[in-house]
Amino acid sequence: MRVPTLILDVERAEANLDRILARARNWGVRFRPHFKTHQSADVAALFRERGVAACTVSSVRMAEYFADHGWDDITIAVPLNLRELDGLRRLATRVRLGVLVDSLAGAAPLMSGDLPDVAVWIKVDCGYGRTGVWWESADALGELAGVIDAAGGIELAGVLTHAGLSYAEASPDAVRMIHRQSLSRVRRAREAIAAVRRSGARLDVSVGDTPTASLAESMEGVDEIRPGNFIFYDLMQFDIGSCRDRNLAVAVACPIIGVYSQRGEIVVYCGAVHLSMAARADGTFGCLVEPGEHGLDELRPDAPVVRLSQEHGIIRGPADIMERSAVGDIVLISPVHSCLTAALYDHYLTLDGRRLGRM
Amino acid sequence: MRVPTLILDVERAEANLDRILARARNWGVRFRPHFKTHQSADVAALFRERGVAACTVSSVRMAEYFADHGWDDITIAVPLNLRELDGLRRLATRVRLGVLVDSLAGAAPLMSGDLPDVAVWIKVDCGYGRTGVWWESADALGELAGVIDAAGGIELAGVLTHAGLSYAEASPDAVRMIHRQSLSRVRRAREAIAAVRRSGARLDVSVGDTPTASLAESMEGVDEIRPGNFIFYDLMQFDIGSCRDRNLAVAVACPIIGVYSQRGEIVVYCGAVHLSMAARADGTFGCLVEPGEHGLDELRPDAPVVRLSQEHGIIRGPADIMERSAVGDIVLISPVHSCLTAALYDHYLTLDGRRLGRM
Repeated sequence: MRVPTLILDVERAEANLDRILARARNWGVRFRPHFKTHQSADVAALFRERGVAACTVSSVRMAEYFADHGWDDITIAVPLNLRELDGLRRLATRVRLGVLVDSLAGAAPLMSGDLPDVAVWIKVDCGYGRTGVWWESADALGELAGVIDAAGGIELAGVLTHAGLSYAEASPDAVRMIHRQSLSRVRRAREAIAAVRRSGARLDVSVGDTPTASLAESMEGVDEIRPGNFIFYDLMQFDIGSCRDRNLAVAVACPIIGVYSQRGEIVVYCGAVHLSMAARADGTFGCLVEPGEHGLDELRPDAPVVRLSQEHGIIRGPADIMERSAVGDIVLISPVHSCLTAALYDHYLTLDGRRLGRM
Repeated sequence: MRVPTLILDVERAEANLDRILARARNWGVRFRPHFKTHQSADVAALFRERGVAACTVSSVRMAEYFADHGWDDITIAVPLNLRELDGLRRLATRVRLGVLVDSLAGAAPLMSGDLPDVAVWIKVDCGYGRTGVWWESADALGELAGVIDAAGGIELAGVLTHAGLSYAEASPDAVRMIHRQSLSRVRRAREAIAAVRRSGARLDVSVGDTPTASLAESMEGVDEIRPGNFIFYDLMQFDIGSCRDRNLAVAVACPIIGVYSQRGEIVVYCGAVHLSMAARADGTFGCLVEPGEHGLDELRPDAPVVRLSQEHGIIRGPADIMERSAVGDIVLISPVHSCLTAALYDHYLTLDGRRLGRM
């Protein structure tokens, strides 16, 4: 290994996947995992082997990539980008395409017939404040459902939300509270639509985020879940309590370029362009993880990445790590937000030396 | 424009370059700009047109890229990565290659003859605490110079530092104070080496960072400067006082996917994977910049990017921006750290529609 390299512990990823699949099965909900975390047809194959046939993505290009790799039931879980209608139309002829709308302006191509053959979800804001119709805005919800129902060739699939507030929580109980609130709100939004709607066709509820998928006790009233990050997890999820250290499935392997004993720090060739600037609550950018005989082993929160520049990472090393570290050695860093870290690489290296491609 | 696109205002970049070139000329120092900011042979051509013949890079791969594009005098301004000796050896046969060492362990391939034909700089830590021999460690400096002098086929070029502390300052005067301290320390390090050295050959002093190159009044005792970010500047430099708003030469153009009047926010298709998570002191991730008739125009600090997720950016919009913004419109975002933002793209789009490639 010469340069910073993204390492994937496939066994851990498979265990993470099996655990969430078992939860989905227990809840009796459909599973439409978000593939923006891994963006890899090779990693997606782990899902396919387990019977998963539908996925979520966050861009038209990502939808095209997975369509090219045989996925034919894809939801793009970001409000319609009106500037990519050509690509969306082409996709809709190839796959069962789900799209999101949260405004009349965004729904314009549906109303005009410019984007036929899609399943449409009304995005609902249940408190996160990113995108979506505010859950209490019954009139706006009803009006949007009305124009979608009136348009030909498209199907109103249901209401969809993302309980993004769960990522700001620091305990499983707090996540569960957000989850209950979010569920109750998205169901209220569905009721508001059903109350004014002419069609009596069923409206599904789709929810998606890794903390609630990992920690919720119930998914009552939910038809579909769309978590993504769980396949790798990361320190952000570890801090929330969504996972244990043994679930952390990716790490960045990087060469040591300096050992500074006086100040108790080692410097690695691994900077913001290799890790991302995502930080934990304490302002650190990751921490060491020990390599084990069969994969990633013990997490070392006592050896955090305390500073990052473009190509350098500075690790505060406890005595044992300072003693055995030498220039030229490889160390492993556990990332804070694995989605952002993985986005900086074009492939994963598995522990048995296989190269898994990314889009 | 369909997706987030990195826009380059070439006129502003050229003005930034001309300004720093004039300063270097006045100071009588050599100019070895850092190309990690743009990583583009096309942008590098602007330097070449102005007679610049030497450059600085931050990785072996970047050195190879610029060597492939005709640059033959390259310093890799990161301590030697012992895992890339093959690549370094090949480079040393093609270009005048400068490398950095700051420890005996890192200098091992020089001592053993495994890396001949390079110019070696001793990296000095003048207070930043990233890499380098601490400026007061006279014994370590002398010992390192001794082994380099004793090795055959390599040249001890001098001492090199990076006054990285300047990036943490918030006023030109504070930057100038850091600069004076850093200069005095790096010269002391050179004196410590000269005092114990058998060879009387000249040792150069190389310094490099954008705040001091933009703001310093004097470069007394300096032979070479290596700033990089100045070609684009960014909000971080604007906040330090290294540049004015009219110097900001890059922006990310991105589609609006939602306008949320009640909460006074617009959401754009432009997330952490398009901007980076680099934040200003106030925690925001960029701000709007207005397009003008001939390029980028007025900066809008009153319209900051207040939150970022992987693919979404949330902009707090003042009344005039809320009123005229519509789903499907394009807005321009001025980035906080242009080096990290540019690293997320494979090309620049100029205002006249040309595509400038990146490595």
